Amino acid sequence: MNLVQKMFKGDKRALTRLITLIENQSPFIFELMPKIYRKTGKAQIIGITGPPGAGKSTLIDQLIKLFRHQKKQVAILAIDPSSPFSGGAVLGDRIRMQSHAGDSSVFIRSVGSRGSHGGLSRATKEIVRLFDAFGFDIIIVETVGVGQTELSIMEIAQTTVVVLVPESGDTIQTMKAGLLEIANIFVVNKSDRPDSSELKRQLSEMTSIPILQTQAIKDVGTQELWEKIKEHSESLKKNNKELELKRKAERRGEFLEIVTNEYEKKLKLASHTDKFLKKLFSEVEEGSKDPYSAALEVINKNKSSID
Amino acid sequence: MNLVQKMFKGDKRALTRLITLIENQSPFIFELMPKIYRKTGKAQIIGITGPPGAGKSTLIDQLIKLFRHQKKQVAILAIDPSSPFSGGAVLGDRIRMQSHAGDSSVFIRSVGSRGSHGGLSRATKEIVRLFDAFGFDIIIVETVGVGQTELSIMEIAQTTVVVLVPESGDTIQTMKAGLLEIANIFVVNKSDRPDSSELKRQLSEMTSIPILQTQAIKDVGTQELWEKIKEHSESLKKNNKELELKRKAERRGEFLEIVTNEYEKKLKLASHTDKFLKKLFSEVEEGSKDPYSAALEVINKNKSSID
Repeated sequence: MNLVQKMFKGDKRALTRLITLIENQSPFIFELMPKIYRKTGKAQIIGITGPPGAGKSTLIDQLIKLFRHQKKQVAILAIDPSSPFSGGAVLGDRIRMQSHAGDSSVFIRSVGSRGSHGGLSRATKEIVRLFDAFGFDIIIVETVGVGQTELSIMEIAQTTVVVLVPESGDTIQTMKAGLLEIANIFVVNKSDRPDSSELKRQLSEMTSIPILQTQAIKDVGTQELWEKIKEHSESLKKNNKELELKRKAERRGEFLEIVTNEYEKKLKLASHTDKFLKKLFSEVEEGSKDPYSAALEVINKNKSSID
Repeated sequence: MNLVQKMFKGDKRALTRLITLIENQSPFIFELMPKIYRKTGKAQIIGITGPPGAGKSTLIDQLIKLFRHQKKQVAILAIDPSSPFSGGAVLGDRIRMQSHAGDSSVFIRSVGSRGSHGGLSRATKEIVRLFDAFGFDIIIVETVGVGQTELSIMEIAQTTVVVLVPESGDTIQTMKAGLLEIANIFVVNKSDRPDSSELKRQLSEMTSIPILQTQAIKDVGTQELWEKIKEHSESLKKNNKELELKRKAERRGEFLEIVTNEYEKKLKLASHTDKFLKKLFSEVEEGSKDPYSAALEVINKNKSSID
């Protein structure tokens, strides 16, 4: 409790400890999140996504500089699949972003995947809500940008920026990645490279959303990108009905995710303690019962066995 | 029922219709899959994954030629995030693979993501089991390769090949993608390009698994890749204990996935029909109740309400 009060008073150490509780899926979340939820809705949430090597981190670095120039408080959440080498954290990006290491108004956090499907998406959304409640003006969520879970995480962003590079592969590959569906703004980064304009042309044939060319490493195009993000955010606010529908879908999605995720946790726990489930799991693992017949037994049985 | 019998007799049209039933999450799956499961375990399942534009499809194309030369029956399952343009299917790859269109021993299928997290992974595994039961000698599963869901799909493959290109980004980006964890073999494709050997060198510092250099478009390295796949597969077979552990984890994972997925489906259905849940969902959507407090109500309530 004390932690939450401290966090609301601007204590970053308390914030960090609350994030750790979320990452560890502490049962305390059910006490914490209702308090957090009440204080959310003020931050501008920007999603930055795209294939590895597109220069997302460099672009975010430039955006942070811009926001800091405007005296804004910024939080960055980088989502990454777990790696035995990085321990789930983004060492490389941390290094790149260290220009802001001494700036107390910039908060950078990496989240590693925890193996469970629902877990990553849920934890990400919870941390974003926490940042929002803490009082950050701008929250940037960075994902690798190819992959179903990673795309679904972007639901939480008001504006999603998809960063590509001329070498991102041909246009069909771009569509494959499902990026067209979630993008509000396209950025063709490393625009000094050959084929940059050609990629922009190809994209413009597929979509009517803004397509910018940037050179993040030289800070070319950052200001223009920020203008486009603001434009998108303002047009969303003006379109009350669309915004309300988006929020409803978001809340419904989060609710479904939490309940299903908790069910899965209970099931896993019960597989070690409940006599009926223990036997069933062992039969499935040994191969003496196929997982479908076994699943049907769980579904048909009184649910109390997995409570 | 007739469909299943026809499928076991080698009827490809029946196979196609069963795949559609799986994609549509028909309740018939619970009748179908136990029958299928009994006949599985013979196929060699190879996962091919890597970032967009790495040349996975071209490499697969060359592998198919090799397998066909050996008179093997081959099935390819390409997993792709849904796209409003492709309708969930991989138009580009289909075009590329059309060299095998007239070959009745090569079966190519694309699966689009269906929005639901658990759904894609589950459907993929079900279709692979179906291919196995049908009698294909080799099943190739291709995913985009960056993303949590896509990585977890690779659990079903005996051997996972990760395809990279010199431009795949720096080494840190590779680790970020979580690919090192699932790779059994690395392929540096487009090896005529600059930095190919440098990428191989960097990878060799991080891992002791085989790293091959290929030029898929010129069929350079395909035979060597196949040798390495066989070596990996045979070493796995020799190590009975490891193989058995892998199978147990696979079966346990599939079982958990099915039960949780069915629970989620029931919950969604009940959100429209069950009085208690209908009210709760509407309160969450309107924002008058936060999703955590609402989830706690569902969890604490007698589970019969969502049966």
